[in-house]
Amino acid sequence: MTTFLPQLEALLRERRTADPATSYTAALLADEDEIVKKIGEEAIEIILAAKSQGNERLVEECADLVYHLLVLLVSRDLQWTAIEEALARRRK
Amino acid sequence: MTTFLPQLEALLRERRTADPATSYTAALLADEDEIVKKIGEEAIEIILAAKSQGNERLVEECADLVYHLLVLLVSRDLQWTAIEEALARRRK
Amino acid sequence: MTTFLPQLEALLRERRTADPATSYTAALLADEDEIVKKIGEEAIEIILAAKSQGNERLVEECADLVYHLLVLLVSRDLQWTAIEEALARRRK
Amino acid sequence: MTTFLPQLEALLRERRTADPATSYTAALLADEDEIVKKIGEEAIEIILAAKSQGNERLVEECADLVYHLLVLLVSRDLQWTAIEEALARRRK
Repeated sequence: MTTFLPQLEALLRERRTADPATSYTAALLADEDEIVKKIGEEAIEIILAAKSQGNERLVEECADLVYHLLVLLVSRDLQWTAIEEALARRRK
Repeated sequence: MTTFLPQLEALLRERRTADPATSYTAALLADEDEIVKKIGEEAIEIILAAKSQGNERLVEECADLVYHLLVLLVSRDLQWTAIEEALARRRK
Repeated sequence: MTTFLPQLEALLRERRTADPATSYTAALLADEDEIVKKIGEEAIEIILAAKSQGNERLVEECADLVYHLLVLLVSRDLQWTAIEEALARRRK
Repeated sequence: MTTFLPQLEALLRERRTADPATSYTAALLADEDEIVKKIGEEAIEIILAAKSQGNERLVEECADLVYHLLVLLVSRDLQWTAIEEALARRRK
């Protein structure tokens, strides 16, 4: 199984040197309060999608949340694999 | 690159037939309000970890959030790949 | 001590018959998902204000949250006094 | 109209010198991250109550949120009237 996350993560990593005036990701990367605010807001959107908006919308809101999680990781020079390793450790 | 998510997702899928009295995941799967509440709470924990608790704690909170996202997907018979496909579509 | 809340509550109650196209409150009252989304978002803003933006901003974010709580109550024909009565019951 | 909020606020203010081992409020006052986490969690409970649990539960969750807002204000030596003044200023 190949996944798109590693590609997206690499792409976001490149955005660190982009112009915040023209790149949404670069603007987020310049303001961690804004990144974590979006993570909170997307979690709320997931709750509302689950309660009243159907699976298609729910998947889109989950994608929004994962995107902003990746931005937060990239802003701290962390990697998505660290999350998966944390999950794997718990199963042992 | 191999990832742990597909394995975890398969594991959670099996939990759908486990006893909610002995399996935390099975108990969550029986109560979607509880799943989405946890997603909201973990997002808040991520905000607080980012603001004051360091990267190690942040990764653990991200792992908590991803775990509960997977539980929500499994409870609706959705798959993690649907999220990655949604992210991939946006990049085209 | 006189307080502004009863006045604001009466004002919001009047907005129920206003035009959603010209009144922010009337537009909110027409969409409860939007009201509760704002309550979640304002709570997140309070967290961020407490962590990094100072007391003045914190008070403004608390005011935003209380405003949207009042809108939620009005949309359901509930009253702010019901909240204070619930708090009073707990102290007995 | 008399309200219970000023009384509760005075009570919480007294709790600042109580023992965190025996007073829930004193324990909260000793850990602002815990206070704001509760504010976030109660906002999520309000969303879920509004979506699926009825008005009675909703009022209780609103009371929980207002209680924790008061604790946050007291922990910073702010007053509830500051919120009402902020709301009043916006109406002028």
